[in-house]
Amino acid sequence: MSVTAADLAFVHQLADASGAAIRPFFRKKIAVTDKGQTLFDPVTEADKGAERAIRALLQSKRPEDGILGEEYGEVRGVSGRTWVIDPVDGTRAFITGQTLWATLIGLYENGKSVLGVIDQPVVGERFIGCGGESFLFSAGMREKLAVRACASLSEAVLIATDPWRNFTEVEKPVFWQVADRCRLSRFGCDCYAYALLAMGFVDLVVEAGLKPWDLQALIPVVEGAGGIVTDWRGNPNPREGRVIAAGDKRVHAEALQLLGKAS
Amino acid sequence: MSVTAADLAFVHQLADASGAAIRPFFRKKIAVTDKGQTLFDPVTEADKGAERAIRALLQSKRPEDGILGEEYGEVRGVSGRTWVIDPVDGTRAFITGQTLWATLIGLYENGKSVLGVIDQPVVGERFIGCGGESFLFSAGMREKLAVRACASLSEAVLIATDPWRNFTEVEKPVFWQVADRCRLSRFGCDCYAYALLAMGFVDLVVEAGLKPWDLQALIPVVEGAGGIVTDWRGNPNPREGRVIAAGDKRVHAEALQLLGKAS
Repeated sequence: MSVTAADLAFVHQLADASGAAIRPFFRKKIAVTDKGQTLFDPVTEADKGAERAIRALLQSKRPEDGILGEEYGEVRGVSGRTWVIDPVDGTRAFITGQTLWATLIGLYENGKSVLGVIDQPVVGERFIGCGGESFLFSAGMREKLAVRACASLSEAVLIATDPWRNFTEVEKPVFWQVADRCRLSRFGCDCYAYALLAMGFVDLVVEAGLKPWDLQALIPVVEGAGGIVTDWRGNPNPREGRVIAAGDKRVHAEALQLLGKAS
Repeated sequence: MSVTAADLAFVHQLADASGAAIRPFFRKKIAVTDKGQTLFDPVTEADKGAERAIRALLQSKRPEDGILGEEYGEVRGVSGRTWVIDPVDGTRAFITGQTLWATLIGLYENGKSVLGVIDQPVVGERFIGCGGESFLFSAGMREKLAVRACASLSEAVLIATDPWRNFTEVEKPVFWQVADRCRLSRFGCDCYAYALLAMGFVDLVVEAGLKPWDLQALIPVVEGAGGIVTDWRGNPNPREGRVIAAGDKRVHAEALQLLGKAS
């Protein structure tokens, strides 16, 4: 079973529903709960309401599919398909009033992410990747996305959200070897970094400490724009929460050579 | 001479002109020149065109005032007033496709910043501070800004753009003492951090390595919303490019006590 036109129409419905659930809470004084064990890990009614809205649609329209969501856990399905949801990826950005957060919706089938949505409902940008193509839907327009060429790390723009907090003591030194070789490093971007990569404004995203729901939606968006996503060992389905996403395979290869030393 | 209604109308004209000069270049493939001696310090036609647009209006409407701009240097005036301009503060964000950059326009008079504008022409947000008040102009609405209360660093959300690159070896350790005490730290925000502070979503901004044109526009916006801006020694007109901006004086005092050790 591959992704159908009905699936593509359906993910727009899912993203519309989550956006409607989130927008009333953005830049409002809302309760923030800390669900972190060690690091501050905030969750709000926007996260929960958006995931409930997506789950309600899935349970009504796709009752045979599995669901894995950040806030409400896993529901096993019988169809072989699983929807992977992070209702607000970048809750720290959300509660800070920044617009770098997004709703992530991924469809996982036969061991692979086959469809991914990065939806920013306040800015009004929706990135969808599927079947080797990625598009940005914004202001009623649809724009095909393409990564840019970049010959080497020394010409690359790198994004990582927070190497100081999110990376382990093993991961930090090799990450800084990569960052120090890049032309420019930017921090604090959350999932929007992958959208910038797919649009061709950034060459490399390196992250660690990610959860499954942080990832599945991003892979088809980056790959559909011509990019490459692996873990720090080069596996195409990232493990251990470590990601290298690059627009040009030459940049990916250079980063992989350095990051692969973190074992 | 204090700020008049005509001055306030005029800064809208200045910001309209700079926004019109910048927007055609955002997220386009444009030439990026590196003007940095050591660090990569990009400049584009957006930076230059916006500053030229602002300077043309100043020279025609306010020929007696001085001008200090990032791209085209200083013009001394005879009125005792100086306009301080950073046409695109956050050019690194700009060329990366992020919307965290803004045009900064400050008016300096009698040793003090008396009027400040932070204008984001793509998102359509204009923050103006003057005479002890600050407002956000967006989508035809005007909203009064107010910082939020925060009793201590342990409850504070901190923003710093890039402590690893922008801070010296003397500044880094004391900065991390502050960051480690905060509830949450966010990185990579550029001048938009001060807008978030004035809106009450962030409690503390700490920066170093700033230039005069990075600063003058921000002070009236933060102070007008009820916040406090000093350097790391507590001087109200920041020197040495070091800034502490806080919404609550208790947070400012705690940060100052730690950062003041960087001599």
